[in-house]
Amino acid sequence: MRALVYNNELQYLTDYPVPRPKHDEALIRTTHAGICNTDIEITKGYMGFKGVLGHEFVGVVEKCVDKSFLGKRVVAEINLGCGKCACCRNQMRNHCSDRSVLGILNKDGAFAEYVTLPVRNLHKIPNSITDEEAVFVEPLAAAYEIIGQVGISSSDRVCVLGDGKLGLLVAQVIESAGCKLSAIGRHREKLSILDEIGINTGLSPEFREREFDIVIDCTGSPSGIRTALRIVKPRGRIVLKTTIANKVQIDMNQFVINEISLIGSRCGPFQPAIKAIRSRQIDLYPLISNVYPIEEGLKAFQHASLKSALKVILKIN
Amino acid sequence: MRALVYNNELQYLTDYPVPRPKHDEALIRTTHAGICNTDIEITKGYMGFKGVLGHEFVGVVEKCVDKSFLGKRVVAEINLGCGKCACCRNQMRNHCSDRSVLGILNKDGAFAEYVTLPVRNLHKIPNSITDEEAVFVEPLAAAYEIIGQVGISSSDRVCVLGDGKLGLLVAQVIESAGCKLSAIGRHREKLSILDEIGINTGLSPEFREREFDIVIDCTGSPSGIRTALRIVKPRGRIVLKTTIANKVQIDMNQFVINEISLIGSRCGPFQPAIKAIRSRQIDLYPLISNVYPIEEGLKAFQHASLKSALKVILKIN
Repeated sequence: MRALVYNNELQYLTDYPVPRPKHDEALIRTTHAGICNTDIEITKGYMGFKGVLGHEFVGVVEKCVDKSFLGKRVVAEINLGCGKCACCRNQMRNHCSDRSVLGILNKDGAFAEYVTLPVRNLHKIPNSITDEEAVFVEPLAAAYEIIGQVGISSSDRVCVLGDGKLGLLVAQVIESAGCKLSAIGRHREKLSILDEIGINTGLSPEFREREFDIVIDCTGSPSGIRTALRIVKPRGRIVLKTTIANKVQIDMNQFVINEISLIGSRCGPFQPAIKAIRSRQIDLYPLISNVYPIEEGLKAFQHASLKSALKVILKIN
Repeated sequence: MRALVYNNELQYLTDYPVPRPKHDEALIRTTHAGICNTDIEITKGYMGFKGVLGHEFVGVVEKCVDKSFLGKRVVAEINLGCGKCACCRNQMRNHCSDRSVLGILNKDGAFAEYVTLPVRNLHKIPNSITDEEAVFVEPLAAAYEIIGQVGISSSDRVCVLGDGKLGLLVAQVIESAGCKLSAIGRHREKLSILDEIGINTGLSPEFREREFDIVIDCTGSPSGIRTALRIVKPRGRIVLKTTIANKVQIDMNQFVINEISLIGSRCGPFQPAIKAIRSRQIDLYPLISNVYPIEEGLKAFQHASLKSALKVILKIN
């Protein structure tokens, strides 16, 4: 089958073997998939992953023990837990130490004609949601994870730092929580998407020290945490969404002296994300930079790596 | 007056000028003071401080506008806020951006015959508490800060990491909160102080990965945060007490991937600390390594810098 494979370099292959579903897995014919910053970081060495990339996708179930899924359009949660350990038994399957992660850790991803995943990971997609919109469910769920982790009150001054794909999603989700939100980035044209829907935006030089109760780092850059430490109030909270391939030099004293809390945040709940897209709470089409056929996958990655790019989508089937 | 002064090197001086109290300040004749790891870090460049060191002390008030303090033994909170800013007005004087900090930032400290401090910073010490015990009020208050910041439940597995002065205080305070506590360090003889009072202890090699709900880093070492990231459970919490002169290289991805929270923790409330000492909840004498007259201050610092040392106290008047 056709697939985008990372093996010390990114390759477009046409003869990659079709995956065979295990007894609890569905075989899904992938229709569209989105390129995430994590995919780009993997091509720089992050996670040491080798195999088919891709974890944001929508597809149609072709084989499945649960017949109710046959022929249905689905998206899928990307963590595959062992099902037996304390994490898995306590609704923390995403944190199973023995897990694999779609296109990130020990599991071929979705930039291919077919992908397999456990039935319990699947979520059906209503007809009112297009394929292009559906590829946003996984990153949008990651944005909703913040809402579950951090109590945000209407009086909180919140800053979303970073105007990339994730930052623009997170800003829209946080806006719906009701608070004093500012989205700060470095690209006027990206921030204008938020301006359109009435979110207060600013460029980096407009930073003010110790201004925000909560800062959410979606920069995808090592400088993000340092900026966050500067603009958060004493006893404030920083939510960290950024993952990067390299270690970062940090003055940890700032956390102690200013009694800052840092909250790491990864994957999130799919149902609020699907509901938000269905009810048009989140505006996704302005976030799409381009759609490429999988045959042009290398070109699509080049596009996605540009600073000016937002979501680049692969059309696969 | 006699004083221990840091000015690119630590010096014992006999002709340092006696400080003159401002209108809202008391003049305190220092009797005893404790050497803290922060003092030692300052002599390595931390905070870039120059002046009289020392922030853990007890003394007798000689001059004061509030006559009720005259002749009384006192300890004192070490942060001096501006009194006007949002932090100061919202009971966060410790976080005033314009503050000075006794013996740490823009304010001569207590390793001297006299020290001045605002009256609002003073706490009277009951007669049942000795001078040697009273110098522990400030670091013990820093241990109580954790209780206010982090809700600890009886089912939580908590690890206090580090068996130095602060670690031994923190372990005793956390024990009193009621939880499944382990204190892990590198010095059998220091940990034995905790063994004596029935706290479960262990040496470093006994670490187990992903075991603890809460890890409190009191190591005073850059390796502490890295160890904490290894032994904390996914979605667990790390309390950071360690301040060190240099930046640390950290794999911040671990916070994101395992959704760890980090909570920086600094100075704390004095009253619970005074109450705990008065009621003999905390056993302090085993934590005293030696008492030196201030004339032997350089020797006292050398002793306090030894890995085997616990609290070294200066007798000043």
